[in-house]
Amino acid sequence: MADTAYDLVVIGGGPAGYAAAIRAGQLGKKVACVEMERPGGTCLNWGCIPSKALLKAAETYETIQHADKLGFNVGEVTFDFDKIIQRSRGVSDQMAKGIEFLFKKNKVDYISGVGQVSAPGMVEITDGEDKGAILTASKILIATGCKARTLPGVDVDGENIFTSREALVMKKQPKSIVIVGAGAIGVEFAFFLKTLGTEVHLVEMLPQILPHEDKDTATALQRSFKKKKLKTYTGTKVENIKKTEGGVSLELVKGDKRTPLEVEALLLSIGIVPNMEGLLSSRVKLKEDRGYLVVNENYETNVKGIYGAGDIIGPPWLAHVATYEAVQAVNGMFGHGTPKKVTLFPSCTYCQPQVASVGMTEQMVKEKGIDYKVGKFPFTASGKAVAIDSSEGFVKVITDAQHGEILGAHIIGHDATELIGEYALAIHSELTGEDIHDTIHAHPTLSEANMEAVASVFGEAIHI
Amino acid sequence: MADTAYDLVVIGGGPAGYAAAIRAGQLGKKVACVEMERPGGTCLNWGCIPSKALLKAAETYETIQHADKLGFNVGEVTFDFDKIIQRSRGVSDQMAKGIEFLFKKNKVDYISGVGQVSAPGMVEITDGEDKGAILTASKILIATGCKARTLPGVDVDGENIFTSREALVMKKQPKSIVIVGAGAIGVEFAFFLKTLGTEVHLVEMLPQILPHEDKDTATALQRSFKKKKLKTYTGTKVENIKKTEGGVSLELVKGDKRTPLEVEALLLSIGIVPNMEGLLSSRVKLKEDRGYLVVNENYETNVKGIYGAGDIIGPPWLAHVATYEAVQAVNGMFGHGTPKKVTLFPSCTYCQPQVASVGMTEQMVKEKGIDYKVGKFPFTASGKAVAIDSSEGFVKVITDAQHGEILGAHIIGHDATELIGEYALAIHSELTGEDIHDTIHAHPTLSEANMEAVASVFGEAIHI
Repeated sequence: MADTAYDLVVIGGGPAGYAAAIRAGQLGKKVACVEMERPGGTCLNWGCIPSKALLKAAETYETIQHADKLGFNVGEVTFDFDKIIQRSRGVSDQMAKGIEFLFKKNKVDYISGVGQVSAPGMVEITDGEDKGAILTASKILIATGCKARTLPGVDVDGENIFTSREALVMKKQPKSIVIVGAGAIGVEFAFFLKTLGTEVHLVEMLPQILPHEDKDTATALQRSFKKKKLKTYTGTKVENIKKTEGGVSLELVKGDKRTPLEVEALLLSIGIVPNMEGLLSSRVKLKEDRGYLVVNENYETNVKGIYGAGDIIGPPWLAHVATYEAVQAVNGMFGHGTPKKVTLFPSCTYCQPQVASVGMTEQMVKEKGIDYKVGKFPFTASGKAVAIDSSEGFVKVITDAQHGEILGAHIIGHDATELIGEYALAIHSELTGEDIHDTIHAHPTLSEANMEAVASVFGEAIHI
Repeated sequence: MADTAYDLVVIGGGPAGYAAAIRAGQLGKKVACVEMERPGGTCLNWGCIPSKALLKAAETYETIQHADKLGFNVGEVTFDFDKIIQRSRGVSDQMAKGIEFLFKKNKVDYISGVGQVSAPGMVEITDGEDKGAILTASKILIATGCKARTLPGVDVDGENIFTSREALVMKKQPKSIVIVGAGAIGVEFAFFLKTLGTEVHLVEMLPQILPHEDKDTATALQRSFKKKKLKTYTGTKVENIKKTEGGVSLELVKGDKRTPLEVEALLLSIGIVPNMEGLLSSRVKLKEDRGYLVVNENYETNVKGIYGAGDIIGPPWLAHVATYEAVQAVNGMFGHGTPKKVTLFPSCTYCQPQVASVGMTEQMVKEKGIDYKVGKFPFTASGKAVAIDSSEGFVKVITDAQHGEILGAHIIGHDATELIGEYALAIHSELTGEDIHDTIHAHPTLSEANMEAVASVFGEAIHI
């Protein structure tokens, strides 16, 4: 890679970085994207995408196991755990190649290596294939993202102890596992492994699984997991993690009570930490807050010309938020509109039943002292849900009591992660519950539940 | 059933009728619903709902057949066709009981029998369990719907020749079938039977299957069917239908060419005709147009106090439209707002890949001479679609070139019928493409394709 001058050098090729590079390319800018592994970042290679392939396998197994109810006689069913893992890697490979194709299409120079901001306007490749290259750029966007948090003294060996990254390439299915942390990642692995037959202990320090979700959907999911004999522990810590001959020993700590447990494997899904190591030379000082880059309303750091977007600028650590921020940052730096900051975003967990939300939880609305109303529609009352044998869950919507504005929506059920889109658009566009109620929804669809939930706020739901 | 005076008597217990009755009950009105079969009407008992249960079976079979790709080894798979049919009946039974429950909850008197408007303000039960009862009502709503159209000289025997109604309770799976008419019903039965192994010939008189859909989605579906070896014939008529010993003989007529064909079964899915028989006594004359009731902007017929809603007032003959009309009519007649007429509604076909649309097709926009733009996003570029092994299809959106208003959206693919909801809300609320583009969509979801399709109108889609 010849040394050259760019309009923009992006460090990091994940959902923020690759989107930023492509967007700059669309705007006709000379742009390079520096990535130390391969395009796609954690999301595409070690997160959202391969995990969805694994979950598809689990769903398929559930479908086959329940097929007799639908009229099918299936002989003995076995599965090849390695093949399931390998398919998920294949999906990541395919999508990563897609990003490389998009780079070419949009004339993005893909630089393979570790990027360091050696000075404002200058990025040095300090390791990897293109080591030694020095890129000059009028603007630099840092989008190096985050990596899984680990615990001091706990050796993530990829054999018995994993973060999500190692868990995505498990060499064999563990007979038993403790999953520490019941956010989306922990919950998804719990569902995946339990469905395939692993004994799963899902442990959350906070009072509910999916701690950021509305209490109603989180509680409903916990109940659903209980039916599946997937053990959940809330308000519980994991301590004294030790490797044993056959796996891992640990203690579950709830209040004064300590319960020892021996399992084959342990997954740490306890959050993430920013990828800042080696990113800045000693000459470059960027303002940080708890390890995350601090940016202004234009996504610019305290140093002119150096921008940040995605996980590296802090929560909510979601791929779709990262992409949005990156595109906004690039639009802004090249005069294509005023950048917007993120105020509203959906959250999704892809176990079955799925959990999805957008806007405020009922707990948040209460805390803010807003006068609100709640509408709820159960999928048991949905003809489509019953017809497709997926009637678990409900849609819950929270509206402002005075103006009818939609404050939050919380869905648990089949396809919740697709259904939430309508509410995201509604809240973003400041529509009222009445707008959704007055929109004709196709029958029979699960999306009718969105409409009926809102109708129930007014006591006008037809099917409950 | 004692003779009694009602605020409203509804004739017909389908998606228009039962919704009207429930809505009137919610408004505290004394209401009766007269139904000659059982609550739910064609949709719930002989249409939308049981067909979705059958389609779920077909999808399950496809899932099992492709499970090896996902890592599963499945032994020999067989199915019990009768069990598949019976499950679909069970779903209808369950939902019909649900309507009866809702009637009780909303204090709706359920009258079992054939209702006749014997005079304005008077409904007589001319047949059925409650025969002889005479109901007086200040208002009457006619919601008797439609039934399948048949062909003169073709005997629908339920053995070899069916309309959708008989086909939903087929006694055995036919080895081969000609389906006459490739609207949603014909297409859904074609997919269902073909997936389970029937040789299917799907014949459409008009130039494309799904004649009301955008040409792009219809053509894509036809191509998908071809890959499945499901034979489609467009611009083709079926003539000389005759019963034979083993089934049915007929001729496919395309232009001058006549091709004889012998099959085991024939399904007529060539539209519907209004249920007007015996509905009105000779004293009651209601204005009709081609057999359908003519109503004004308040859903009132030419006779004061007699209203109509649903299929009986004409196209588009969709359950969700019928329900909407019925609720509007009831709200209006009891002073709960000004009734709205239907201008925008989604259309859905639940084969795989699904087809869904809302608003104008590109052909309609062209005919109107509107200056428009098209955005398109293929599911092959969607990480979620690839991860769940369902990357067939695309989202196509048509926007006004000048103002960016969304004119129509057309989706073919997995979950298209759920994804269309977002566009329905957008068009209904007069949002622009920019509103959808600027809404953060959860990653990875299929709904991102809605956003990227709109972004592609501006040349700003990231993933294509």
